[in-house]
Amino acid sequence: MSDTLPRTELSSLGEFGLIERIASRIQLTQDSSVKGIGDDAAVIDPQGLHQVVTTDMLVEGVHFDLGYVPLKHLGYKAIVVNLSDVYAMNATPHQVTVAIALSNRFPVEAIDELYEGMAQACAHYGVDLVGGDTCSSTSGLVIAVTAIGSAKKEDIVYRSGAKENDLLVVTGDLGGAYMGLQVLEREKAVFKETGAQPDLAGHDYILERQLKPEARKDIIELLKKLDVKPTSMIDISDGLASEVLHLCRQSGIGAMVHDQKLPIDPTTYRTARDFNLDPSTCALNGGEDYELLFTVAQADYEKVKGNPSLSVIGHMTDKASGYHLVDKHGGTHELRAQGWDAFLRKE
Amino acid sequence: MSDTLPRTELSSLGEFGLIERIASRIQLTQDSSVKGIGDDAAVIDPQGLHQVVTTDMLVEGVHFDLGYVPLKHLGYKAIVVNLSDVYAMNATPHQVTVAIALSNRFPVEAIDELYEGMAQACAHYGVDLVGGDTCSSTSGLVIAVTAIGSAKKEDIVYRSGAKENDLLVVTGDLGGAYMGLQVLEREKAVFKETGAQPDLAGHDYILERQLKPEARKDIIELLKKLDVKPTSMIDISDGLASEVLHLCRQSGIGAMVHDQKLPIDPTTYRTARDFNLDPSTCALNGGEDYELLFTVAQADYEKVKGNPSLSVIGHMTDKASGYHLVDKHGGTHELRAQGWDAFLRKE
Repeated sequence: MSDTLPRTELSSLGEFGLIERIASRIQLTQDSSVKGIGDDAAVIDPQGLHQVVTTDMLVEGVHFDLGYVPLKHLGYKAIVVNLSDVYAMNATPHQVTVAIALSNRFPVEAIDELYEGMAQACAHYGVDLVGGDTCSSTSGLVIAVTAIGSAKKEDIVYRSGAKENDLLVVTGDLGGAYMGLQVLEREKAVFKETGAQPDLAGHDYILERQLKPEARKDIIELLKKLDVKPTSMIDISDGLASEVLHLCRQSGIGAMVHDQKLPIDPTTYRTARDFNLDPSTCALNGGEDYELLFTVAQADYEKVKGNPSLSVIGHMTDKASGYHLVDKHGGTHELRAQGWDAFLRKE
Repeated sequence: MSDTLPRTELSSLGEFGLIERIASRIQLTQDSSVKGIGDDAAVIDPQGLHQVVTTDMLVEGVHFDLGYVPLKHLGYKAIVVNLSDVYAMNATPHQVTVAIALSNRFPVEAIDELYEGMAQACAHYGVDLVGGDTCSSTSGLVIAVTAIGSAKKEDIVYRSGAKENDLLVVTGDLGGAYMGLQVLEREKAVFKETGAQPDLAGHDYILERQLKPEARKDIIELLKKLDVKPTSMIDISDGLASEVLHLCRQSGIGAMVHDQKLPIDPTTYRTARDFNLDPSTCALNGGEDYELLFTVAQADYEKVKGNPSLSVIGHMTDKASGYHLVDKHGGTHELRAQGWDAFLRKE
């Protein structure tokens, strides 16, 4: 919050005033949005499709640090992480509801920034903000977003459909969001100790991965174009290893992941090395990449191979074989999830 | 949290462990619930109906005080207040998602209590808990519930449909939840000062109104039975006066409410007098009653009159006439909303 911004106290608006302020800036764009903000509930016309629903909560001091996360980016990210869950069902999001708890330390202008970021995400992904709640908090900012999407029943992809010998495919590249966070945390520590301005040069890509991640709407469209229906799918929020294990356990099979196949951006690689971290470990356990991880039948290999957005990183095995990582030298190790656990972090 | 309960640290379970613990106790009961907890998103089959969606957030220290609210009641209430919004659309809730942020000060047993209350509400109202999020909080407990319901498109009732001369009808009785809160706050203050055990005798009804409110599912069924479709409807969360004004403003008309017609339970009346409060003011502005306020065409008067669940408290007027309260002596006053405002309370 810059000192140059005007500061309007939240209490001067009141809850209804704030809701009106938010609502006045929102236009419904989706045919399926029958009624948005302003009644006891929003109304959606499913148009003959199944609906998918997902909820995520972001808590100040746990999921974000306003010391280095601009509110506009936070609003954008709060929407995106939920849309990512909808895409992971092979569905298309059309509506979100947003509940926020915030204290009086936030001026109205800060809330405007937060909702501006949400509005940008909604516009970018073709989603309507149709409802929610605003209330006061005794301490930090809490944001709960529910995203609602739709898909034909037969198009929905679950975590549980992977079969032995299916190929394991991941989109984009991994570990970037985690390394972005490391850079932000380092510069924050330096600033606290020395007062030196943050040196973020050369880290644009990984900072964007952390601060303004995107959900892979394009992949859902690509899969349709390629005529590929994944047998299982999940989004990568906790880290690749953790998500592979989810697919394995829910599908009742094993997996073999090849370290050398992990897609890692050069910036991520270089920064990990600077931090004396193993880039593969960052890719496997970093989390918050919001890429999609899915399995496809071997018969679909020709359709996915060579696509710049897709990396085949391994294959599914029988359950008894377990979960393995093949290292650069051909050695195999048990694949373990070391992603962060919400209850072990920053408590 | 009683000292006699075993205490299992939340960190011993971890987030996935907690989710598994919660999920293991939940059974899907609704035909429309295709997939519940355990994937990136829940899946709902709308079965040809429109969907209504509403989100509410409850924040410790703002909406509830764990000093006198048992966690099981809190869980029950968190679900009920959302279902009330679905009924206020003349729709039937079938699914909820629940996101909670909580600190390590809560043992696993406390979370069990909270979810037990939610499960009881879900069972009572025929609703499935299909998803959500659990994360840590740096301080208090925050609960965000999204409720999803369905209705035929033509049955949905908005706030905006009230017409001049329509009758204004309220269900149940008013002010009880507010007086229940006053008793709880008084006994808490006495306990703090003197250590005296709370004296709650004789206040059962209003305490239950505050601690374990119910949503008026029965009214939606009654209206169908009576073959009455309200022209507008809203649930009473902020107080009758505030909700009357919402209906008026969104319908573009005025209203006349008769003080003497306000339904007030004898316990509420007596307790208000004990507190030197005007019972009518409590009924008008108390809030949290979760009754339904609706308008019906004059032609439906015969259908609603004399029903013990329904009170005709006034009628709608033209916009220019404004919003008025007729007092016991026939004097008219401007109707004003003095319900609590989330940003002015307890900050």
